[in-house]
Amino acid sequence: MNPTLMAIGGAMRLDGAVLAELYARCGGRSGRMVILPTASGNADAGEREAAALQSLGLQAAPIILPVRSREQAQKDEYIRVIENASGIFLCGGNQMRLTAVLAGTPLLAAIQRAYQNGCTFAGTSAGAAALSAMMIAYGKSGQAPRHGIVQLVPGLGLTDKVIFDQHFNQRNRLGRLIYVVTTTPNLLGIGVDENTAAVLTEGQIMAIGAGGVTIVDGSQLSDSTTAELEKEQLAAYSKIELHLLTDGGVYDIPTRKAKLAKTILSTE
Amino acid sequence: MNPTLMAIGGAMRLDGAVLAELYARCGGRSGRMVILPTASGNADAGEREAAALQSLGLQAAPIILPVRSREQAQKDEYIRVIENASGIFLCGGNQMRLTAVLAGTPLLAAIQRAYQNGCTFAGTSAGAAALSAMMIAYGKSGQAPRHGIVQLVPGLGLTDKVIFDQHFNQRNRLGRLIYVVTTTPNLLGIGVDENTAAVLTEGQIMAIGAGGVTIVDGSQLSDSTTAELEKEQLAAYSKIELHLLTDGGVYDIPTRKAKLAKTILSTE
Repeated sequence: MNPTLMAIGGAMRLDGAVLAELYARCGGRSGRMVILPTASGNADAGEREAAALQSLGLQAAPIILPVRSREQAQKDEYIRVIENASGIFLCGGNQMRLTAVLAGTPLLAAIQRAYQNGCTFAGTSAGAAALSAMMIAYGKSGQAPRHGIVQLVPGLGLTDKVIFDQHFNQRNRLGRLIYVVTTTPNLLGIGVDENTAAVLTEGQIMAIGAGGVTIVDGSQLSDSTTAELEKEQLAAYSKIELHLLTDGGVYDIPTRKAKLAKTILSTE
Repeated sequence: MNPTLMAIGGAMRLDGAVLAELYARCGGRSGRMVILPTASGNADAGEREAAALQSLGLQAAPIILPVRSREQAQKDEYIRVIENASGIFLCGGNQMRLTAVLAGTPLLAAIQRAYQNGCTFAGTSAGAAALSAMMIAYGKSGQAPRHGIVQLVPGLGLTDKVIFDQHFNQRNRLGRLIYVVTTTPNLLGIGVDENTAAVLTEGQIMAIGAGGVTIVDGSQLSDSTTAELEKEQLAAYSKIELHLLTDGGVYDIPTRKAKLAKTILSTE
């Protein structure tokens, strides 16, 4: 299987298209699912998702791997669980918990190997943010980029081509994603709405679910003032290309073209 | 003088760069300024601006033309005032008052002739919205376009190339402007922030003031779903080009290129 990432924008319904896609992308009925609750502050994180996946037909109960400390991220037993997985789901919470616990550990090395070997990685909210090499740790709302609007830190490193943001249109996060892209135009910004997934595989991004996936492309950026700003100042920029995909729409990264999903027309 | 429009995004300070630009663009010291309070519900609308312009050096007191009804928009005396003006300032308030009072009247015909003859037209907030042939009457906030997010009605008709929006980043109005542009890709969207002006003359747009001027260019739009939506549904679209100008930045409409204003570097 080709490496596949599934970034979910938070607030995933357990009875909808996003969960069904997660199920299918992680191996379906015979999938070997692992749930990483690391980002969450709740002791029961992942239990509802595990039950919902089983109700779709998943035969083996997902393993909720209790990694909450750097010590736990050394355990050989847990590394073997990662190595055996066909799909890994990262719970939401705070993405800095994920990186603070996992950075530099044998478990993260196992995660990165598993991804290269074809294990699907899905994350919701904080779990989506953390998938990439550079992640948005936190930031402020607003449609326009400003100095200080976003804090970046290294993420789990599964891709260095894109950067994900989540709760995207619900929390008006376009400004911070444009800021990142104007600063680092080689990164493709992907803003994922709630109860929606961006599925990234084989150079394509597909939107699944109720909301939108916004693509922020800085490859044609001709100029920006991000390097010259002081606190809270608005960043000027020239030429960011935007696309918004809804359920079934696909963006092709190499050609930078989108194919929108439309109502199927009857033959005329 | 070439026809000049100055769209101000509301909340104009009376001691800043936007008022000074208005003063200069309307003829400076010897300008013959007219203020149209029509959009406002306040009896004293325009008086503060008039005083502030005089404090900059304007010699003749601006004429505040009391046009509040369609009957008043027939008066020959007022038409002569318009014909004699070098600059006309439209107060804020509700842009639908402007069109409801002026549409189809001899006064509006005089306004359109005056613009063609080189009189500068400036408007703030509602007065900015109303400058174009098609104007945004009202709408909803949000960074993403949705069905029903915006209501368009005909404006005062001074340009059919662009459409202005105001209070732009302050009220998160990118979604509604993208909606307009995906629906009518030949219109260039210009979103103006508070206490900021977009000066449109000779095919160029210059930003003046404290905030930003956002350019929403749909000329490369390849597809959108705006025609297929139902109530509140998100609009998918492919390729909107965005630029954000700050004070001194210029966008050239024919070439679709922006030149950002930067800190002047010392010669090396």
